[in-house]
Amino acid sequence: MEFLDQYQEVISKAITKYSFKDKPQELYEPMNYIISNAGKRLRPIMVLMSCDLFGGEIGKAVKPALAIEYFHNFTLIHDDIMDEAPLRRNVPTIHTVYGLNTGILSGDGLLLKAYKFFEDLEPNLYKACVRVFTHTGLLLCEGQQYDINFETQDNVTYEEYIRMITYKTGVLSASSFEIGALIAGANFRDAKNIFNFGKHIGIAFQIMDDYLDVFGNQKDFGKKHAGDIYENKKTVLYLLAMEHSTPDERKELEFWYSKKTDNVDKVYGVEKIFRRTKVDEKTLRLVEKHNQIAHDYLMKIDIPDEKKKPFIELANYLLRRES
Amino acid sequence: MEFLDQYQEVISKAITKYSFKDKPQELYEPMNYIISNAGKRLRPIMVLMSCDLFGGEIGKAVKPALAIEYFHNFTLIHDDIMDEAPLRRNVPTIHTVYGLNTGILSGDGLLLKAYKFFEDLEPNLYKACVRVFTHTGLLLCEGQQYDINFETQDNVTYEEYIRMITYKTGVLSASSFEIGALIAGANFRDAKNIFNFGKHIGIAFQIMDDYLDVFGNQKDFGKKHAGDIYENKKTVLYLLAMEHSTPDERKELEFWYSKKTDNVDKVYGVEKIFRRTKVDEKTLRLVEKHNQIAHDYLMKIDIPDEKKKPFIELANYLLRRES
Repeated sequence: MEFLDQYQEVISKAITKYSFKDKPQELYEPMNYIISNAGKRLRPIMVLMSCDLFGGEIGKAVKPALAIEYFHNFTLIHDDIMDEAPLRRNVPTIHTVYGLNTGILSGDGLLLKAYKFFEDLEPNLYKACVRVFTHTGLLLCEGQQYDINFETQDNVTYEEYIRMITYKTGVLSASSFEIGALIAGANFRDAKNIFNFGKHIGIAFQIMDDYLDVFGNQKDFGKKHAGDIYENKKTVLYLLAMEHSTPDERKELEFWYSKKTDNVDKVYGVEKIFRRTKVDEKTLRLVEKHNQIAHDYLMKIDIPDEKKKPFIELANYLLRRES
Repeated sequence: MEFLDQYQEVISKAITKYSFKDKPQELYEPMNYIISNAGKRLRPIMVLMSCDLFGGEIGKAVKPALAIEYFHNFTLIHDDIMDEAPLRRNVPTIHTVYGLNTGILSGDGLLLKAYKFFEDLEPNLYKACVRVFTHTGLLLCEGQQYDINFETQDNVTYEEYIRMITYKTGVLSASSFEIGALIAGANFRDAKNIFNFGKHIGIAFQIMDDYLDVFGNQKDFGKKHAGDIYENKKTVLYLLAMEHSTPDERKELEFWYSKKTDNVDKVYGVEKIFRRTKVDEKTLRLVEKHNQIAHDYLMKIDIPDEKKKPFIELANYLLRRES
């Protein structure tokens, strides 16, 4: 998508321009290391897109967009420590390269640096954006803790699952859009509409991620097939399967999810129940449901539909639908 | 000191009032655990004292004062992980009780919660205070990294040492005073004067801490005698001794500081050089120097001296001088 490339270029240039030259190098080098190892940088792009949609000045949104990217990378540094992950985007994680202590400390520093990147905004706007940012940060921590809790929690409900992914994934894209809207001077109602668009796209994306783990084309997806099943992750597939299975199937699911094993029989057994209970179809319907909710919020915004096209394209891209 | 007790009561009540009731409990309980295990709470008291000095409304400063206390406890949680400390204020540390992951995550959450506690301030004041707060946070991270660097750095200079303790200790007390002044509506110059008062008191306190480790009455000090020597810490005593010792003495110091041992001969040998080079007297003169600088900044503030008395009492208390 051409418009994505254009925004991406703005972000890449800004990341280079503002790369940390502060001292001590031992603290800031790991921050530059993770940020320069770019992901798709969708969240800062969302800030710019939203600012554009509401007729704002893109230049004013660039540093706040970096704040979102820094924040995201702060969470990655600390999450990778918690998950004991050796690799991130195919290169060694911060704590693997620089050790645990630098991982913790440069994560902290990156969060604080993110706050600094709102400081060019005038006080009213600064306060509005920083409030959204802080609130989002707390919800992410809460979502991460819920996710940790799920590992040992017996009866995770569908509602608890949705809350967890909303906090972990939905809120950051939502807030990215909202901050872009605030910077453009959008009214309160429209800022909330674009927030909710981002929230439900985020939820749909996360549900799709669960789906693709098992039912995706692994070559495209780039992850180990059924990694979530091996890891006993209580994904939406698992929760729906537990709900729609027979007592015997439920027992089998519980049996497999109480074991950590690389035995393919596990994946074979679990997938069979997933297919029998049709959780693949059910999950795709959930993706569609949240995509539709997102779309409805987008349509509520009183701006010509033509200008909203990039948002629909982005949603389709994230949900791997043909546009 | 009676005035300290009064402020302390205000802070204690506020901490109880605002104790975190949010969910998930697994995230917020560790925050309440560390905050309720009170230290002297000097930093939030500094916010209130400064607000009082400049004729501000104490009620307005209470939540920002808690932000400072939360921030301080966030650094303690993460520092204790880095130091692998089993105890803090005589009770088990967060990561010991709740595990590494919760330690990292609830530390992050506490930093974010701290930001929320400025949100009652109107936008101009909010921005002014949050900027000071963010900047302080970054300097603390930098100071912590310098401290980590010193462990393996061969030639630590006196200037590098002062910078490290300024960032690690001086800046937070400085900013506590500054934020109190800003909330009271003090002018820019006075806010900087009280900032510098706090900075130099912080530096003097840290130098005194180094001194007491070796030359203090251990019963009063409550720590292991000469713990810094056993730990090979490059304190001001060590740096001054290296500067003022003979080549043979320097070799002996380097020998001892390259070894980790519980052998009392080490402490005996190092202390002998400390006394021969008179670093005890030199260190006390440094304490006095920074105390004097702090006092000079305090005196620059155009407020009747009578109102400044608590600040001098606090300095004397921190530096264990008879007032």
